[in-house]
Amino acid sequence: MPDSTPSVGTAAPVSGGAVERAVLEDLAAASRILADHGVFDASGHVSMRHPKHPERFLLSRALAPALVTVDDIMEFSLDGEPCEARGRSAFLERFLHGEIYRKRVDVMAIAHGHPAAVIPFGVTGTPMRAMSHNAAFLAPGVPVFDIRKAFGATDIVVGSPEKGAALAEVLGDKSVVLLRAHGFVAVGPTLPAAVFRAVFTEVNARIQLQATLLGGPIAALDAEEGRKADAVNLATVGRSWELWKRRVTP
Amino acid sequence: MPDSTPSVGTAAPVSGGAVERAVLEDLAAASRILADHGVFDASGHVSMRHPKHPERFLLSRALAPALVTVDDIMEFSLDGEPCEARGRSAFLERFLHGEIYRKRVDVMAIAHGHPAAVIPFGVTGTPMRAMSHNAAFLAPGVPVFDIRKAFGATDIVVGSPEKGAALAEVLGDKSVVLLRAHGFVAVGPTLPAAVFRAVFTEVNARIQLQATLLGGPIAALDAEEGRKADAVNLATVGRSWELWKRRVTP
Amino acid sequence: MPDSTPSVGTAAPVSGGAVERAVLEDLAAASRILADHGVFDASGHVSMRHPKHPERFLLSRALAPALVTVDDIMEFSLDGEPCEARGRSAFLERFLHGEIYRKRVDVMAIAHGHPAAVIPFGVTGTPMRAMSHNAAFLAPGVPVFDIRKAFGATDIVVGSPEKGAALAEVLGDKSVVLLRAHGFVAVGPTLPAAVFRAVFTEVNARIQLQATLLGGPIAALDAEEGRKADAVNLATVGRSWELWKRRVTP
Amino acid sequence: MPDSTPSVGTAAPVSGGAVERAVLEDLAAASRILADHGVFDASGHVSMRHPKHPERFLLSRALAPALVTVDDIMEFSLDGEPCEARGRSAFLERFLHGEIYRKRVDVMAIAHGHPAAVIPFGVTGTPMRAMSHNAAFLAPGVPVFDIRKAFGATDIVVGSPEKGAALAEVLGDKSVVLLRAHGFVAVGPTLPAAVFRAVFTEVNARIQLQATLLGGPIAALDAEEGRKADAVNLATVGRSWELWKRRVTP
Repeated sequence: MPDSTPSVGTAAPVSGGAVERAVLEDLAAASRILADHGVFDASGHVSMRHPKHPERFLLSRALAPALVTVDDIMEFSLDGEPCEARGRSAFLERFLHGEIYRKRVDVMAIAHGHPAAVIPFGVTGTPMRAMSHNAAFLAPGVPVFDIRKAFGATDIVVGSPEKGAALAEVLGDKSVVLLRAHGFVAVGPTLPAAVFRAVFTEVNARIQLQATLLGGPIAALDAEEGRKADAVNLATVGRSWELWKRRVTP
Repeated sequence: MPDSTPSVGTAAPVSGGAVERAVLEDLAAASRILADHGVFDASGHVSMRHPKHPERFLLSRALAPALVTVDDIMEFSLDGEPCEARGRSAFLERFLHGEIYRKRVDVMAIAHGHPAAVIPFGVTGTPMRAMSHNAAFLAPGVPVFDIRKAFGATDIVVGSPEKGAALAEVLGDKSVVLLRAHGFVAVGPTLPAAVFRAVFTEVNARIQLQATLLGGPIAALDAEEGRKADAVNLATVGRSWELWKRRVTP
Repeated sequence: MPDSTPSVGTAAPVSGGAVERAVLEDLAAASRILADHGVFDASGHVSMRHPKHPERFLLSRALAPALVTVDDIMEFSLDGEPCEARGRSAFLERFLHGEIYRKRVDVMAIAHGHPAAVIPFGVTGTPMRAMSHNAAFLAPGVPVFDIRKAFGATDIVVGSPEKGAALAEVLGDKSVVLLRAHGFVAVGPTLPAAVFRAVFTEVNARIQLQATLLGGPIAALDAEEGRKADAVNLATVGRSWELWKRRVTP
Repeated sequence: MPDSTPSVGTAAPVSGGAVERAVLEDLAAASRILADHGVFDASGHVSMRHPKHPERFLLSRALAPALVTVDDIMEFSLDGEPCEARGRSAFLERFLHGEIYRKRVDVMAIAHGHPAAVIPFGVTGTPMRAMSHNAAFLAPGVPVFDIRKAFGATDIVVGSPEKGAALAEVLGDKSVVLLRAHGFVAVGPTLPAAVFRAVFTEVNARIQLQATLLGGPIAALDAEEGRKADAVNLATVGRSWELWKRRVTP
């Protein structure tokens, strides 16, 4: 959400090394894809772990996600310190990314947004469940992070390492965590997987809202179906990714 | 959903013969039409029976439906074996098509997708009914296929002849079958009819969701009204088809 | 909905005379406006009374409304007979227009469509009410025409003078009538007024669905507010009309 | 909503002075932004206080908001008298703007529209609450102005200084007021802030409708969270503004 100029009092962390342009283009495209799908509005951000250095991650400067291109990508340490700020403003919520990468070594990409259909599940007691195969990653459960529990009345922003760590704690070993009165975070083992999960978290929210309207019990995916369907999704995510990337590539 | 390289151990089935380019163009357009209407997202597929050989059908290779063109169309036997793979990946769910063509000699085209508004009817006990004349094909009833019943906890994919046959069995003599936690299949006596039915299955789902919200009994089409209105729709489907095709033709 | 080649056994009715091209362009634009707003899908039609002859009306040939241009406009008697068919197919539901013009001398234009949000009000017992000033024309009440009452199980099409007259009877002196399991008809004292009413019938349906979801009594416009607000709307409809027309004019 | 030619019997008020073209361009863009976001339809208007004269404000002539450019901007006294009409029609609801500027010296910009999702909250007893950080400005409460209370059955238009003053009274010190069976007004300390609030009033309405559907208590932002999050939003509104402006700038 908000942005800040990172502290400059301490030495900048050492870079994890140059990253292939195609990788950076994918990350910038991921940002535009999520804007194109309405998962991101004028805010929202998606990051990836540095391919060569597990304690660094890549994230655009504070910018509307629809506008992100390769030149906007910055590199950060897991503490959220930029390796080379060059006057660019960083997202204040970069701590959310860093602390999840720290806690979850399996996570290679993270997306955070606040689409209208998802927020209701974060402010009511209704657990989000997997309405279809595309949302199989939700079958293990979707925890809700209420920032009030540990931090009292805040500005809602996950704007410090402590808040990021508390969020990562609630995420646990799941793929998605909802943020009360704020939005959600989706993680994945690859960038396309994280983008796919962010897209289908939003779609699943709309489906579950409508299923709730019909009333009665909902025959969602069970845990084993979820596990099996998720494997299929991860194996075939390339088809969505290529289509979606094409739509946001000039 | 997922794709696979078909087995190559056995001899490929003999082709039903060359198909007119205009027919293939219609089938490719059908794929793009259903993407254009939001019935298909990055996945979904539509097939037609081979015009000259009732035991063959035509279906695109595994590809995002918005991108399908004539060159992507493959030919399959009802067992789902490609007549000429040429290295192209086939949709794993091609068995769904083959087994319905086997069981239903009246069916000439089949569409399968998973739009958000339709899925709720497959995971709740609410029967889908025909809310208006355009959905007359639903008036005889809309069965739900729950893959768990015969196959236990699966990856949801209709990925074998056995699963396809079980689905065809539940479809029976109807025009649409819902797939629990997955999507739906619509069939028709012509390609435009199957596309029309897929489009209006999605529209009807939205209407019924809203009618449910208003509460009270719903004065849906009865069986006789459905039969009569369906005849009108089949006679006039060309008007929708021409408009929709024009929208997806470069 | 469906179309037919009008009977040719009897002499064609005499034309009401040439109509200014600008008037025909407005009528064709009205058709495209209603498609552009999603009030019409691949079907739907809008007509106007002949400016010089109250017993004639103008309506496009049977064609997807998004495609209508001046050359598609046909002229009909109130009996639905074309003055000059020239091989063009007429909408079978032209009788709906003719019979309303016959019964309602104040009506100068009529639109008929079946948007998803409106149909629920025709299949449930929930009366449509005026949720805001723009829907003031609904404040006097919105009757529902159930074709089963007089005609039993039909194909739903208002395809004869008798059915058109029965619909006109239910419309009475109101501005909008809902057709059970079919759609709606909106009428107005001018073409822009009828288009405005068709657009805001659809918008009002969405608003009332949402207000119903919130629960509790709804403080809709009362009859006197409706009368006063409608006068304002009729006086200022030109602003909407000009904007909407611009959007569909190449 | 409606427009009128302002009275010419009295001397026109003296202008507050020339306004920079960039400021006027921002105001015209604000109008187009709100149309682009669906907050405005063919009507709706947004104004700003004159930068050099607190008793003057700037508002487009009566025109569809999507079409507004710099040349359409007029200047008015708080009484709603144009400084220089030059034959242009003024919005009749300009009084709404003038009276709020009179009562609220902190308000620098005002937007008024009637999106479908917001109206339900004005016709039912459900209070609108802040569903997420972006809607923090709603946390202090959202009053409802029912024009019937003081004026009986009207045409709903806020078409006189008296009606504008009554609306301003109900607004009080809040950021948004709902108008029964009509729409809403959002105010802000800057033009981008008022636009942001108008956009997120609409988004928040959609979120709250969906949260209501899920049922149970809603953990909305509390007053202190709202205060803190609003400060963040006001500090970072430029990111949304730049993106949105870019989208409506040729």
